Amino acid sequence: MPISANNTSRKSWLPVPNNSDFPIQNIPFGVFLTKENVVTVGTRIGDYAIDLGALQQLNYFEGIELTDDMFMQDTLNDFISDGKKTWRLVRNRIAAIFDAVNPELRDNTKHRNVIIFNMVDVEMQLPVLIGDYTDFYSSKEHATNVGKISHNQENGLLPNWLHIPVGYHGRSSTIVPSHIPVNRPMGQTLPNGEVTPVFGPSRSVDFELETAFITTDANIMGENIPISEAEDYIFGMVLLNDWSARDIQKWENIPLGPFLAKNFATSISPWIVTLDALEPFRTKGPKQAPTPLPYLQQKGKNSFDINLEVAIQPENGEPTVVTNSNFKHLYWTMHQQLAYHTSNGCRVNSGDMMGSGTISGPTQDSLGSMLELTWGGKNPIQLNDGSSRKFINDFDTVIIKGHCQNGQVRIGFGEVSSKLLPPFTRK
Amino acid sequence: MPISANNTSRKSWLPVPNNSDFPIQNIPFGVFLTKENVVTVGTRIGDYAIDLGALQQLNYFEGIELTDDMFMQDTLNDFISDGKKTWRLVRNRIAAIFDAVNPELRDNTKHRNVIIFNMVDVEMQLPVLIGDYTDFYSSKEHATNVGKISHNQENGLLPNWLHIPVGYHGRSSTIVPSHIPVNRPMGQTLPNGEVTPVFGPSRSVDFELETAFITTDANIMGENIPISEAEDYIFGMVLLNDWSARDIQKWENIPLGPFLAKNFATSISPWIVTLDALEPFRTKGPKQAPTPLPYLQQKGKNSFDINLEVAIQPENGEPTVVTNSNFKHLYWTMHQQLAYHTSNGCRVNSGDMMGSGTISGPTQDSLGSMLELTWGGKNPIQLNDGSSRKFINDFDTVIIKGHCQNGQVRIGFGEVSSKLLPPFTRK
Repeated sequence: MPISANNTSRKSWLPVPNNSDFPIQNIPFGVFLTKENVVTVGTRIGDYAIDLGALQQLNYFEGIELTDDMFMQDTLNDFISDGKKTWRLVRNRIAAIFDAVNPELRDNTKHRNVIIFNMVDVEMQLPVLIGDYTDFYSSKEHATNVGKISHNQENGLLPNWLHIPVGYHGRSSTIVPSHIPVNRPMGQTLPNGEVTPVFGPSRSVDFELETAFITTDANIMGENIPISEAEDYIFGMVLLNDWSARDIQKWENIPLGPFLAKNFATSISPWIVTLDALEPFRTKGPKQAPTPLPYLQQKGKNSFDINLEVAIQPENGEPTVVTNSNFKHLYWTMHQQLAYHTSNGCRVNSGDMMGSGTISGPTQDSLGSMLELTWGGKNPIQLNDGSSRKFINDFDTVIIKGHCQNGQVRIGFGEVSSKLLPPFTRK
Repeated sequence: MPISANNTSRKSWLPVPNNSDFPIQNIPFGVFLTKENVVTVGTRIGDYAIDLGALQQLNYFEGIELTDDMFMQDTLNDFISDGKKTWRLVRNRIAAIFDAVNPELRDNTKHRNVIIFNMVDVEMQLPVLIGDYTDFYSSKEHATNVGKISHNQENGLLPNWLHIPVGYHGRSSTIVPSHIPVNRPMGQTLPNGEVTPVFGPSRSVDFELETAFITTDANIMGENIPISEAEDYIFGMVLLNDWSARDIQKWENIPLGPFLAKNFATSISPWIVTLDALEPFRTKGPKQAPTPLPYLQQKGKNSFDINLEVAIQPENGEPTVVTNSNFKHLYWTMHQQLAYHTSNGCRVNSGDMMGSGTISGPTQDSLGSMLELTWGGKNPIQLNDGSSRKFINDFDTVIIKGHCQNGQVRIGFGEVSSKLLPPFTRK
């Protein structure tokens, strides 16, 4: 099926600002709450949120096989379950409805009034009910840096790292959309040189610059997804901030991995950008040496050229961009992650989310965490207001942005922006 | 509110075999499928499954505030959300309805026919939709043994183990009820002495003898549950087999913990036994030295005396009991696990499940895994049919049972029984 929604010559009758992440060629999917307290599945063009439930009720999806309440839901899980053919039909149809040359909705004020909202008038929700959340560790630069900083390993990488996309299970219950503030966690840590741990607020709260992909129902328990089929089960991507408390992590991490250091909060951008929309930005990832075992081998362009940046904005201040990275630096691809994840028969469902791991680039200004940018807190970084940071301060807002750009089109994710608050206090 | 359901002098008008795990003093909660393909919330007395949805429709819960469809659901999550007061009212009422002296249902054949089923005529389902699954590592004996076997540590325990109930996140999507077979996982392993890993069926599939507790909605994100309140948020317990592939685990485990070695399957017993039913078996756990930090301190009887056993049954053979352990051996209590888990503000929801970790006792015949029973495969164990096992063979069934017993009553969990099949093959 052709992806007509990607047609770069198409313009929308809805105004799209210059450099918007959301031209008519994007058509991401999300869930929003209106001022009338209605929750609906939606998409976005420019600075407008579009109610897909209302579009469906007014018969704009006629001819596409959809259950009656497909979009009048508070999650995208059922839509994602319908599979790639339906995703593409719906996305192509939306592009046609909002095409500048199509008068059907453009000239129907009554319909427009119930379908189209200003972004400032809606509140973005989590787009999916996330059954299981997995976080990978797929940047060679990041894993190398962490090895050097945390474990004093000369070459950084552990023996298994080049053979498997190392990952672990995260916590679904604390995944929140952009703009939900996060509390500094309390936790147990071992002060340097001490033998008795203490309990108190974490002193080294960090961000991790990540993306994540959302899956559809992929397999039954026991069955694997061959790498050649993996892309069929990936609906789309979001930006992800994997909040981390480095001091808690250091004390708890051996032998079972990250737990309370990570599960206090994970923030994601609210619009899921489909792989179809990212198609023009397909590119090769880094060369893999040694060659992975056959079940993880693939050829061709399996990564995407997605520019990523992180800014820190102090309370009442301006944001300072502290890093610029790119998704294409990741060593292991999403296909490899999904094929690996299911190689033992682990079942993957609609709405499951898999994080990339911190996406660090090869240079000092492309590192994906404060841990790396300050080399474990040794070299504080300067913000534009003259203040310095080893880690994130209370009332700082961390803003991750991501977009793809070529000569013809810009496809972006918007942002995941979240403020760090002091530890929670009971009212 | 008194727990009248625990009255040991009460008898049911339903026959209860000697040594049944399910006298009228138990009243566990589960979900079952009838021959008519109806799914309902239920309880069990003796060898009878009782349809709580039908009981509610026929007004047997009159006077207890419940939503109309509370029990006509395919999970217990909503009921668990209602909190301890409601759990207790319902359990007390069920005990009254089935009390030998109460003729109301006993003498109403028409009602009995739609409410009561033979256990052999129903199919047990997962009792809850498990949002997040956490597995702890709370047996000192097990952690010590694993340290000695896997890491060649002289004293076994890592520095943090006596200060925190170490845990990690598991996978919800592959938690299955008793009697669902499990496929031997494929996976990547590093053969002894080699530097290049291989991919193939795991050669060391193991069980882990565990219990798990199921929580109710406990907190909002950011908030912690003080240890003094933790028990209010624990609905009940099940038996759990934490299937593990030791060769995969060995290769993947450092630095982020168990992943594909565990997430291919986790089997649980289908009836949730309430903490109320376990109340008569409350006991002290092991002395904790050093004393935990204040947020993990508690006094009194915070463990339960629950006998546990594991048997291996070869295809067409008889089961051989390979270990006998007891929940009371666990070093860290459920209260400590839950207080710790939420100490950083991690949100806990209704239906979340937290595994105990392997429950090994202090003696050779009380170890909770083949890894320990055979000391890493070095000392195979004998089954009654003369065959020996280092780990679990294809077509073996692993059966975990658990019960409490005093002079007056026996309260049990039934079993979690699951057969290991060869690796999955596509049809």
